[in-house]
Amino acid sequence: MNTNGPHQDLSTKPRHECGICGVFGHQDAAKLVYFGLYALQHRGQESAGIVAGDGKKVVLHKDMGLVADVFSERTLQRLSGHLATGHVRYSTTGESNIINTQPFMATHKGLALSVAHNGNLVNSIALRRHLEQQGSIFQTTMDSEIVIHLMARHIDRGLQEAIKTTFSCIQGAYSLLLMTPDTMIAVRDPNGFRPLCLGVLDNGAHVVASETCALDLIEAEYIRDVEPGEALIINDKGLTSLFPWAPAQKSYCIFEHVYFARPDSDVFGFNVYAARKRMGEILAREARIEADFVMPFPDSGNYAAIGYSNASGIPLEMGMIRNHYVGRTFIQPTQSMRDFSVRVKLNPVRSLLTGKRVIIVEDSIVRGTTGRSRVQSLRRAGAAEVHMVVSCPPTRHACYYGIDFPSSSQLVAAGNTVEGIRDYLGLDSLHYLSPEGLVEATGLSRDHFCLACFTGEYPIEPDKTFTKEAFSGCGC
Amino acid sequence: MNTNGPHQDLSTKPRHECGICGVFGHQDAAKLVYFGLYALQHRGQESAGIVAGDGKKVVLHKDMGLVADVFSERTLQRLSGHLATGHVRYSTTGESNIINTQPFMATHKGLALSVAHNGNLVNSIALRRHLEQQGSIFQTTMDSEIVIHLMARHIDRGLQEAIKTTFSCIQGAYSLLLMTPDTMIAVRDPNGFRPLCLGVLDNGAHVVASETCALDLIEAEYIRDVEPGEALIINDKGLTSLFPWAPAQKSYCIFEHVYFARPDSDVFGFNVYAARKRMGEILAREARIEADFVMPFPDSGNYAAIGYSNASGIPLEMGMIRNHYVGRTFIQPTQSMRDFSVRVKLNPVRSLLTGKRVIIVEDSIVRGTTGRSRVQSLRRAGAAEVHMVVSCPPTRHACYYGIDFPSSSQLVAAGNTVEGIRDYLGLDSLHYLSPEGLVEATGLSRDHFCLACFTGEYPIEPDKTFTKEAFSGCGC
Amino acid sequence: MNTNGPHQDLSTKPRHECGICGVFGHQDAAKLVYFGLYALQHRGQESAGIVAGDGKKVVLHKDMGLVADVFSERTLQRLSGHLATGHVRYSTTGESNIINTQPFMATHKGLALSVAHNGNLVNSIALRRHLEQQGSIFQTTMDSEIVIHLMARHIDRGLQEAIKTTFSCIQGAYSLLLMTPDTMIAVRDPNGFRPLCLGVLDNGAHVVASETCALDLIEAEYIRDVEPGEALIINDKGLTSLFPWAPAQKSYCIFEHVYFARPDSDVFGFNVYAARKRMGEILAREARIEADFVMPFPDSGNYAAIGYSNASGIPLEMGMIRNHYVGRTFIQPTQSMRDFSVRVKLNPVRSLLTGKRVIIVEDSIVRGTTGRSRVQSLRRAGAAEVHMVVSCPPTRHACYYGIDFPSSSQLVAAGNTVEGIRDYLGLDSLHYLSPEGLVEATGLSRDHFCLACFTGEYPIEPDKTFTKEAFSGCGC
Amino acid sequence: MNTNGPHQDLSTKPRHECGICGVFGHQDAAKLVYFGLYALQHRGQESAGIVAGDGKKVVLHKDMGLVADVFSERTLQRLSGHLATGHVRYSTTGESNIINTQPFMATHKGLALSVAHNGNLVNSIALRRHLEQQGSIFQTTMDSEIVIHLMARHIDRGLQEAIKTTFSCIQGAYSLLLMTPDTMIAVRDPNGFRPLCLGVLDNGAHVVASETCALDLIEAEYIRDVEPGEALIINDKGLTSLFPWAPAQKSYCIFEHVYFARPDSDVFGFNVYAARKRMGEILAREARIEADFVMPFPDSGNYAAIGYSNASGIPLEMGMIRNHYVGRTFIQPTQSMRDFSVRVKLNPVRSLLTGKRVIIVEDSIVRGTTGRSRVQSLRRAGAAEVHMVVSCPPTRHACYYGIDFPSSSQLVAAGNTVEGIRDYLGLDSLHYLSPEGLVEATGLSRDHFCLACFTGEYPIEPDKTFTKEAFSGCGC
Repeated sequence: MNTNGPHQDLSTKPRHECGICGVFGHQDAAKLVYFGLYALQHRGQESAGIVAGDGKKVVLHKDMGLVADVFSERTLQRLSGHLATGHVRYSTTGESNIINTQPFMATHKGLALSVAHNGNLVNSIALRRHLEQQGSIFQTTMDSEIVIHLMARHIDRGLQEAIKTTFSCIQGAYSLLLMTPDTMIAVRDPNGFRPLCLGVLDNGAHVVASETCALDLIEAEYIRDVEPGEALIINDKGLTSLFPWAPAQKSYCIFEHVYFARPDSDVFGFNVYAARKRMGEILAREARIEADFVMPFPDSGNYAAIGYSNASGIPLEMGMIRNHYVGRTFIQPTQSMRDFSVRVKLNPVRSLLTGKRVIIVEDSIVRGTTGRSRVQSLRRAGAAEVHMVVSCPPTRHACYYGIDFPSSSQLVAAGNTVEGIRDYLGLDSLHYLSPEGLVEATGLSRDHFCLACFTGEYPIEPDKTFTKEAFSGCGC
Repeated sequence: MNTNGPHQDLSTKPRHECGICGVFGHQDAAKLVYFGLYALQHRGQESAGIVAGDGKKVVLHKDMGLVADVFSERTLQRLSGHLATGHVRYSTTGESNIINTQPFMATHKGLALSVAHNGNLVNSIALRRHLEQQGSIFQTTMDSEIVIHLMARHIDRGLQEAIKTTFSCIQGAYSLLLMTPDTMIAVRDPNGFRPLCLGVLDNGAHVVASETCALDLIEAEYIRDVEPGEALIINDKGLTSLFPWAPAQKSYCIFEHVYFARPDSDVFGFNVYAARKRMGEILAREARIEADFVMPFPDSGNYAAIGYSNASGIPLEMGMIRNHYVGRTFIQPTQSMRDFSVRVKLNPVRSLLTGKRVIIVEDSIVRGTTGRSRVQSLRRAGAAEVHMVVSCPPTRHACYYGIDFPSSSQLVAAGNTVEGIRDYLGLDSLHYLSPEGLVEATGLSRDHFCLACFTGEYPIEPDKTFTKEAFSGCGC
Repeated sequence: MNTNGPHQDLSTKPRHECGICGVFGHQDAAKLVYFGLYALQHRGQESAGIVAGDGKKVVLHKDMGLVADVFSERTLQRLSGHLATGHVRYSTTGESNIINTQPFMATHKGLALSVAHNGNLVNSIALRRHLEQQGSIFQTTMDSEIVIHLMARHIDRGLQEAIKTTFSCIQGAYSLLLMTPDTMIAVRDPNGFRPLCLGVLDNGAHVVASETCALDLIEAEYIRDVEPGEALIINDKGLTSLFPWAPAQKSYCIFEHVYFARPDSDVFGFNVYAARKRMGEILAREARIEADFVMPFPDSGNYAAIGYSNASGIPLEMGMIRNHYVGRTFIQPTQSMRDFSVRVKLNPVRSLLTGKRVIIVEDSIVRGTTGRSRVQSLRRAGAAEVHMVVSCPPTRHACYYGIDFPSSSQLVAAGNTVEGIRDYLGLDSLHYLSPEGLVEATGLSRDHFCLACFTGEYPIEPDKTFTKEAFSGCGC
Repeated sequence: MNTNGPHQDLSTKPRHECGICGVFGHQDAAKLVYFGLYALQHRGQESAGIVAGDGKKVVLHKDMGLVADVFSERTLQRLSGHLATGHVRYSTTGESNIINTQPFMATHKGLALSVAHNGNLVNSIALRRHLEQQGSIFQTTMDSEIVIHLMARHIDRGLQEAIKTTFSCIQGAYSLLLMTPDTMIAVRDPNGFRPLCLGVLDNGAHVVASETCALDLIEAEYIRDVEPGEALIINDKGLTSLFPWAPAQKSYCIFEHVYFARPDSDVFGFNVYAARKRMGEILAREARIEADFVMPFPDSGNYAAIGYSNASGIPLEMGMIRNHYVGRTFIQPTQSMRDFSVRVKLNPVRSLLTGKRVIIVEDSIVRGTTGRSRVQSLRRAGAAEVHMVVSCPPTRHACYYGIDFPSSSQLVAAGNTVEGIRDYLGLDSLHYLSPEGLVEATGLSRDHFCLACFTGEYPIEPDKTFTKEAFSGCGC
């Protein structure tokens, strides 16, 4: 099993959510989806799966592990047909297992139905209860199983009617891909929490993916986003766009821009790299600091750091160097080694830091434990002052729409002042980007976004009796 | 098995050489060497080994693979004792195998002798011939086997005498660690081709390593470099420094600063990061270009790019984004995918590049094939002009001292003008740093360095009848 | 992973079916079930699973592979609780995958229900259709999923009522173990096709298993068989025995005695070893042959060969020697090697065979291809005459009750005379045990058995429109 | 890697030694050697290796593991050429590692020399000392390294002279295959301790192997044994047979017939199966016992049991049934399980044993621990009397010629009377075959054999200061 991984400490970051990708109309559909998932791997590293169809039958392959480990040339050959949808799932602690992998597939009266789902429902408990009352049994703890149960109960009335009825029952965040042996359906919830985009290949085949970086890799041209509240039915008859549900206030997840999405993706219609650089520029305006240089921690805040440096005129440096070969297993250090867990990944450049006033640009602070160690490591390497600017506001509230923040008790900002956090991290100063500044960086207006993790104002009332721990798996 | 790896295309870079690390005087000697090798992993990813001694007996463990894969807590526990030396070896194609791993160990009259070697001898064929004339047999193709044969033949006259005689016979580049059950000996050739530094731990234990980043990770304090022509004997009686051979002209490998060493290391007495940034600054002076931004390819030229940007005032951007999850095995792309091998690792940020004049800062160009593809990929993503500056002169000559450049026929600069290379790479302009500029960036004078790969002037005449292909393994 | 396994050519034998084992009332219930499955491994090598319960919650672990590979000390520790049921599944070609493993578990209104099933339903298609009409979806192709759907639909009326109703709908062969978090239920179909026995441990805990060899290994004392048509509810209140369904004609699978069950097991109340030896004795009476010695092929017909030798007075020899180290992967032999696939496993003892008249005692002939090669190999090794006696009648008809014979077109006896088979196998003579002789060997009367594979007389009319190929997995 | 292997408890048996095989004159030489080693796998399961040559160069591949795991189609393709020699090595505890695998290869003045060795030298310490005096270094603890050192020192005088001189220095047991790029040399020591046979393939290619079962598998015809004291040089000029050393008393290892060799092999000119059956027949004459049946423990004493049954008229039964799926890893049983380690592999057939008087036929008793447990298990299963007959005399003395018996302190027969052993094993009676009876069973006269392990009379005086523990690896 490969853990390869992004070279940052995921344990203190909000978890990536899931990623989905589907292709209709290409003889190598499954292989293209494979590459799409490959490009979306940052959205989920726990498991991967693809279901492929040729108009008559479907074949599913999924397993725990990275995309590159789950699929081989041989398995991809078995996934033959002109349509395919796939899923990558994030890594949760403990209960993750093969049962809770996606796409989720079941048959009903001979019809194979599958779903690949990104997001989180807020009324899943009620829906389960309702379905069980009617005799349903459940094998997984995934929302996608609920979706298939509902679809199966209404499919006799036709696909469009089944979609309409199914998603009328469902509340929450979902960007998903349904599939039958001959049709792919992309659905995005009316609030549009999670991204979903549509592209086209040279041969006219359609592609749907969580982010545009998946389109780039397979050389699909971006057409447009799947709209909030849209159901897009793609089959031999072409594209049919439906808006069967009442429209709702837009609630794009701004964390996609802060941290989740790949910087080379365009998400919600604008480029992530550009947004992050602008966050840095606005931070430079909001938080003026005298310092000798600006630095990111590697892979965390790189683009905001460029923006901050440009706008402030303070030079950019790379004050900590990553060990490229951090493997998965660790020998315990000897007792005397301080800062070991930091230095084994990132070594401070002593000659650069000695006597210098440093500004760290971070994309987010969740638990704060890693940041604290890194700041200490910089000080031991000789930094005279260590300041930090963060390219989003303090994260103080749980997310019910598909992001796996640690629980409040572990969020350093929950119930803590900025001064308290600064103190905990051992900084000379600490500045967070304002909500207004964050929204400004995106180029859209405030009413497009869900900022609930910063503000506690939830666009859809979650069932707060729900504790994620009650479920064994991924809520997305 | 994960190989994680540096996120650049090693196949078109000169190979990293080997790395060595030894500790004398600590009860966890092998564990400390393990971490030292961990920090030196960039110098060799093919195999790793450690030999440990407790004054009486020695235990060796080595295998193909990364440090993290070769050793476990259990194997480290078996490597008990207060002294230990270790080795990481680079990856060669084809003939690499378990026989050609280091440290190389043999016994002679009950005495276990081992060596961990970084460098390349130029008279190894003659030495083999000579030894075979006297009845020696060889099991490997490594220079280190020759060293042990010579040591064994002279050890009866005492360790110091054996060292003196052995290395009098040997010509070429070597920084190495010899070990007996109770003594560690660090030797650096009189030219000082390869780096080797000495440090001390809190408890007074001595550490020898290829680069200072290994000292940093295990919290050893840097004392000084092992000098060219020095043999440093470390045992219970303390340190004994010998200079038994005629002094020679210094010939430090300047490629350590250009590309090989980790930027957080100090090598040959100055910091690599600082040297690379200065290369960029001098490049900005030597090659003035009008452009919208400066960018490195990820992990290749980062620090020179910062220097170039600072000195030129042209903003720095990250125009290509790395996929963090590039695994080891690849599914073949479908036929229509152009630039695939580039984009699967690095995706151009289209919105950033469109219509822009871009300067790429590269640390070196060897084959040029990858660079060519990347330039095409940038153009397809919309770049209006693509210029490249390289932080060293054109690499036109083979190295006989331990660096594995491709053969001349594969070096794009061999027998080619800069204009020809520019043309091949598809650039609007191409500038190489001058030899003078490169030397200036290091802060030392010209007569400290071997620049043979740029100039063809070899400090020690190599046996040019020697073809590395005649041997199956590592020449270092 | 090596599966080494039984040293006979499974590809030409009827497939083993599944095996089940459950324990109620022991703190190490899962570990005991593990060992029970270990003893039952001959009944299925494709996958293994155990579900354990502690009265409140249940934990399931299952995977592809042998029992020893699927479970570790760590996974067994997670399977805590005083009751546990487990399953081993046979190996099918192609579509076998993780989804189709058992025990099958689902939740319904918070109640976890699982089932481990040995046998095959004959009305599963009708049942699926019926359940789908009511909104059910299916994720697997296993009969056990149907059982859980039915149980879930009736569980509100109480466990006993649910059992009664569920199995009233079901037709076919089933010996199975249902489990809730606090109760284990053993059910055997009214015909009693497949075996199921009850035992007790020292501490009073109850054990249910497919064969008594599982009881032996965990030192449980055999009490009695679970009766045809019995449902045995085991929980904190003790054992409750129900016979809720109309009684039926007994139809024990006689192939358990011929080939499936382990010779050290007692099945249907008598010892398998003894029955097989008696088959040989009766064969000696039915088929008198002049020969120099009697021999089995290793592990196939051993006990019948002993019986034949004893009864006939013709000495027993081991004319073919097994290579103990037949691994899983094979290098293709060079072209000239004849009989290679035989000899790589079994080498004829030339000096024993030369000029001798030999009687092979076989337990069954299915495809006949392996037998044919082995006979040729014996002749090449010098045997003067090769006769064969088979300890059951010709297998000419499909089984619908859980045995995976090859399809009729591949059964050498289907539509072929004994003379034709003898000719195909290249024998001097061939004799099959008569149905009467076979029944006589068991010690029970004819009306206890299903002999459908020999006679075509099916005790329950199967749905012959059903083709197993329509399903992707195990029918049992 | 699973080695599953022979279904008997190797830990209480003398270790198998090594096996060797070579082919000269076939384009698939390495593949044929692969199959030869496959057939010889019972002689060594720790590591395997093949060196192949095409007249000019040689390629070696060896690794820890079974033959089937060490080689793949790909590695065999790399082993191209018309001659090849291979080796399987037995499994020792602890120090076994990749360094100590065979064939051992080294180069000397450009000539690649390799050796695959079965046996054990008795003057290896003196030879090492002598060679080190002349400057040799050693990397392994194998006798084969000494052979190559000696060959290298004399090869300048021609191959024949080098062979003559080399083996004049060497004392002990050796059947070995030397190889240069164009010549294969088979050598057997003058005493002829270990077997070695010569065969020919259809195309005229020559094959040398430890046992004839290797010839059988690759369809080579047996010609004759390589004679004691013979060196057989095989190259393009054909076969040259030399007897360059003084002849010696024959000392065939009789344990090859008792236990080591495969029963389908002819060893020292007669069939192993026949010899073992005769041992049983003679035992029946020497040890008359009243009993209900005779039984072997599975795979241990099978053929002697047939002989005993035939000669005594007491029926043969299989009183213990092997679990075919004993995997490599074990879960610890619960505390209450008695005889577990026996029953997990072998289950007594209770209904067969109850009230019966049983004679076990064993091939050898070494430690006695397993036998003791098995006897207890038979008694618990109801056996009224348990007698044992053993098809060789008590094993009381160490072997210095290549067999790895446990040290004397662990040999149950060392310093113990037969009555004492009977008592320890818990038997009603115990009889060992007499040395005379054992020799009689082979058909040769007493003066052909080494019986040192039974009698303590050593044909070549071993250096008893030598302790095998002083060396880390295989002595063979």
